[in-house]
Amino acid sequence: MRAANSILFQKLSNKTAKFIKSLRVKKYRQQANAFVVEGVKNVQLLLSSRYTVQMVIGTPAFLDTHRIAMQPDLAVFQTDETTLAALGTFTTNKAVLAVANIPHTHTLLPPPGDTWGLVLDNIRDPGNLGAIVRMADWYNIPTLICSPSTVDLYNPKVLHASMGSFTHVKVYYTPLPAFLSTTSLPILGTFTSGDNIHCTPLPFPGLIIIGNESRGISPAVLPYVQQQIRIPRYGQAASLNAAMATAIVCDHWRRQQQQGFGSLPRL
Amino acid sequence: MRAANSILFQKLSNKTAKFIKSLRVKKYRQQANAFVVEGVKNVQLLLSSRYTVQMVIGTPAFLDTHRIAMQPDLAVFQTDETTLAALGTFTTNKAVLAVANIPHTHTLLPPPGDTWGLVLDNIRDPGNLGAIVRMADWYNIPTLICSPSTVDLYNPKVLHASMGSFTHVKVYYTPLPAFLSTTSLPILGTFTSGDNIHCTPLPFPGLIIIGNESRGISPAVLPYVQQQIRIPRYGQAASLNAAMATAIVCDHWRRQQQQGFGSLPRL
Repeated sequence: MRAANSILFQKLSNKTAKFIKSLRVKKYRQQANAFVVEGVKNVQLLLSSRYTVQMVIGTPAFLDTHRIAMQPDLAVFQTDETTLAALGTFTTNKAVLAVANIPHTHTLLPPPGDTWGLVLDNIRDPGNLGAIVRMADWYNIPTLICSPSTVDLYNPKVLHASMGSFTHVKVYYTPLPAFLSTTSLPILGTFTSGDNIHCTPLPFPGLIIIGNESRGISPAVLPYVQQQIRIPRYGQAASLNAAMATAIVCDHWRRQQQQGFGSLPRL
Repeated sequence: MRAANSILFQKLSNKTAKFIKSLRVKKYRQQANAFVVEGVKNVQLLLSSRYTVQMVIGTPAFLDTHRIAMQPDLAVFQTDETTLAALGTFTTNKAVLAVANIPHTHTLLPPPGDTWGLVLDNIRDPGNLGAIVRMADWYNIPTLICSPSTVDLYNPKVLHASMGSFTHVKVYYTPLPAFLSTTSLPILGTFTSGDNIHCTPLPFPGLIIIGNESRGISPAVLPYVQQQIRIPRYGQAASLNAAMATAIVCDHWRRQQQQGFGSLPRL
């Protein structure tokens, strides 16, 4: 066999396949500074984002019907459905996956002073973080500041649940007390007691802290909370799912910002 | 070996273990009219509910520290952590599981006329349905009317995500057009277009239809929608997670019902 010259779609080597599979594990993602994105919608949003994409691996059916905007140093590989499904985490993905670089800003401290958004204190469930990223994108909340213990944004399940919104929302991982001590914005925290969000002005812009799924806001972060807020309860459940609670709070935050607190709704 | 007399905690037979494992599958749950509940909190709520419990299987550590309110015909088995974890779906459950009867009301048509609550049109993700059940319990929404295509309430992942709230919320499975044609209440449907829920009175009591995660409300159900409502979008995400969207709508439904639409919030 001799190499054909100027073929667009390279053949996937075993070494590259092994590298892609290794990126399921956070440690190897960090070592390689790279992550995998699966599925048509996620990959399309990735390719039109500011992420640097290393490679795209697609089936003939996908590559025949989708134009891939070429970036310098982007490798495009063609493979069959079975191989593709085995490379990623989701066996339902039978079209395309891509490998992109983790941006160096990922582990930097967010700009101090006026960074507003949500502060995630030890959110552990990948589905919850993914849904929160998607919801932040819906409400145009630009920043999530996560404790280092929060599940990794580049976990395949997080990316999947984010439905591509990870390309629109800035997600930082940094020790929360250090960050919270630098901000000049009001800091709110969500609790099962505190001011009812239906009857309380939510300062905008500001920071709203969301606690861990079972333990809530951690002792090290508690001293930074200036106002405790809660979602009113009408029935018997002890709590709400963390991602759902976050969505309800953000909806009120935006509604009040737009309509003004206490004013009549605009019809 | 001889049988000890009058032991409270029976030994688990292979036949019973096999029966319990079979209940992971919907077909076998329906044949046996029984389902499995896992974990301390879920089992405790089950035992204090109106469900008829057939058996409880616990570790010595659990059975030593928890009093189980005896019901007639309730069998209690003792087993080790490894066996227990292998019986259920969640390997993290190392304390207790229970088997209970599926109530016969489960497949009946809800009472016509004034049954209010949420109508779930083909919700497929078990985590979404479980979170919706939990949220309905939080907001004291008494009834979920589900299309037969909606994921089964007694799916282990649904029960797990419901955090015990399946014992508080009535969940019916019935063809939606037949049910919707019997109601005398207003029928709303959630869409990505329609009346902004921040600026629209949401009639209470009523029925709010939630559509499938990717396809929305089905063509057969559409003609019954009297008012289309939407959650306002501020950013770029194409949609919200279905369970999250449901929670946001229900929060406004209850808020308006309590505060009155267009009135000033009570401080």
